[in-house]
Amino acid sequence: MFGIVIHGGAGTLPRAEMSGDSERKYRAGLTEAIDAGYAVLQEGGTSLDAVSRAVMLLEDNPLFNAGRGSVFTLDGRNEMDASIMEGRTLKAGAVCGLTRIRNPVGLARAVMERSEHVMLAGAGAEEFAASQGISFVPQSYFHTPERWQQLERIRAGEFGLSGHTISHVGTVGAVALDTHGHLAAATSTGGMTGKRFQRIGDSPIIGAGTYADNQTCAVSTTGHGEWFLRTVQAYDIAARLRYGGYSLSSAVSEAIMQRLPGLGAAGGLIAVDQRAQIVMRYNTPAMFRGCVRDGETAKVYIY
Amino acid sequence: MFGIVIHGGAGTLPRAEMSGDSERKYRAGLTEAIDAGYAVLQEGGTSLDAVSRAVMLLEDNPLFNAGRGSVFTLDGRNEMDASIMEGRTLKAGAVCGLTRIRNPVGLARAVMERSEHVMLAGAGAEEFAASQGISFVPQSYFHTPERWQQLERIRAGEFGLSGHTISHVGTVGAVALDTHGHLAAATSTGGMTGKRFQRIGDSPIIGAGTYADNQTCAVSTTGHGEWFLRTVQAYDIAARLRYGGYSLSSAVSEAIMQRLPGLGAAGGLIAVDQRAQIVMRYNTPAMFRGCVRDGETAKVYIY
Repeated sequence: MFGIVIHGGAGTLPRAEMSGDSERKYRAGLTEAIDAGYAVLQEGGTSLDAVSRAVMLLEDNPLFNAGRGSVFTLDGRNEMDASIMEGRTLKAGAVCGLTRIRNPVGLARAVMERSEHVMLAGAGAEEFAASQGISFVPQSYFHTPERWQQLERIRAGEFGLSGHTISHVGTVGAVALDTHGHLAAATSTGGMTGKRFQRIGDSPIIGAGTYADNQTCAVSTTGHGEWFLRTVQAYDIAARLRYGGYSLSSAVSEAIMQRLPGLGAAGGLIAVDQRAQIVMRYNTPAMFRGCVRDGETAKVYIY
Repeated sequence: MFGIVIHGGAGTLPRAEMSGDSERKYRAGLTEAIDAGYAVLQEGGTSLDAVSRAVMLLEDNPLFNAGRGSVFTLDGRNEMDASIMEGRTLKAGAVCGLTRIRNPVGLARAVMERSEHVMLAGAGAEEFAASQGISFVPQSYFHTPERWQQLERIRAGEFGLSGHTISHVGTVGAVALDTHGHLAAATSTGGMTGKRFQRIGDSPIIGAGTYADNQTCAVSTTGHGEWFLRTVQAYDIAARLRYGGYSLSSAVSEAIMQRLPGLGAAGGLIAVDQRAQIVMRYNTPAMFRGCVRDGETAKVYIY
């Protein structure tokens, strides 16, 4: 048994803002990513390759808040974060504050595989990228008119930083189980529209935004990053399995539908375990998401 | 019942490198920090104030690898990380890659109390500091000849980055329980001598280096940061209590003395719970540490 689950962010996503044409594009983007990840698994590839592939396609897709199409900081830049983890070895890689790397998740993976470290930041991470021959793109590559308009609306005070509309807290991620029985997880984000002070959310934090351990599960989260940091949300799911004897489904339900709302925290997560149990839960009105397992048909959902 | 526990780093710390005079100075530094934190608690102050005060004194003390006396990066700079967390509210603050802030833990606390974020990085964190009227020091303030010599030895290839001598992986931290029954934890570090690429270790990561939750415990870790990131070590202790019904002592023992050595990970941690149970465990030959509880005499230890 093998499978892959992806997400493209959780939020309010008012249906009024989602035309039929727009919905088709989002669905096509999710389908493309999940099909590509699934193809890797079907050919006997690793879960690490599958989540990397799926997340890179979501990063390349300007609809999602990661890589190209990332939201803007208050001073009009794109600062991107990503992380990845391999459940077999507990090896992990994370990067934050990138401005010129096309695929942040690819650099996170390079940190994991080719450095002795887990996490590198900003210009230092990009210096490492250069030393590894990873190619750079101009900052204009990340610019999309839709994201720029969202920044303009923030600057005009039309909505505050803590609004949870999909337009400014989206993130992408993937978790997978491969035919070898190994788990992996990856998450990538442009962060929060109008962010300042090189704010880091949960996406590049191993334990908060991303976690994978063959003995428990693989998790990628999306939502109000500050709360997911405080609850160490990705590892919290793994710990419920590891120490509390929870099933994956009950662990995620209790965390996302009970504990987080009690704290006032909006968001969701995707998870998979070694028995190919798949969970996609969110306490927001919507989460871009999709999943497929061996022999099943890929499904993508928004609401 | 109330109490405070501090650490000043775990490592091999060869006795040959520790003269009687040197040992006296380390003990005096630990004693000063623990007495100051204890005084806060004794006067009815908060655990947050107590851990801040203790960690700031360790940051100000050039003997320890945090604030003044931080180790040098490969290109001869000091880059400091810190984090703090309040067990009553789960509020947390973290900063990484600071170069000009005298007390990194103070800035982490300002992020927690005066921003809507948990984690700020580098120049952005320092811009936030300036906006809050937090004073800066010149980079030369952090420079000590001992740390510079250690960098020279790294540069000369005398020992590699992954050696675990106290001289280059030390960190400071404190956990406390106050008279109001609230827990807090804080950690601060200069990181790893000779680090490159703006490497971030576990110290500024909520869940890995620092965690506090009134319902479980307060934890501050020190050691091989990459492994503490992968095991989400601070929150792992809290999760063992929360979901596994472990006592604080058995949770820490199993993590530090069994799981981490099995992974090849060297280090230690300090922890306290709401019943004033105190644990200080390490799988290295030494850990600078000390503790005191209401009505007891403060004790400091190295080996």
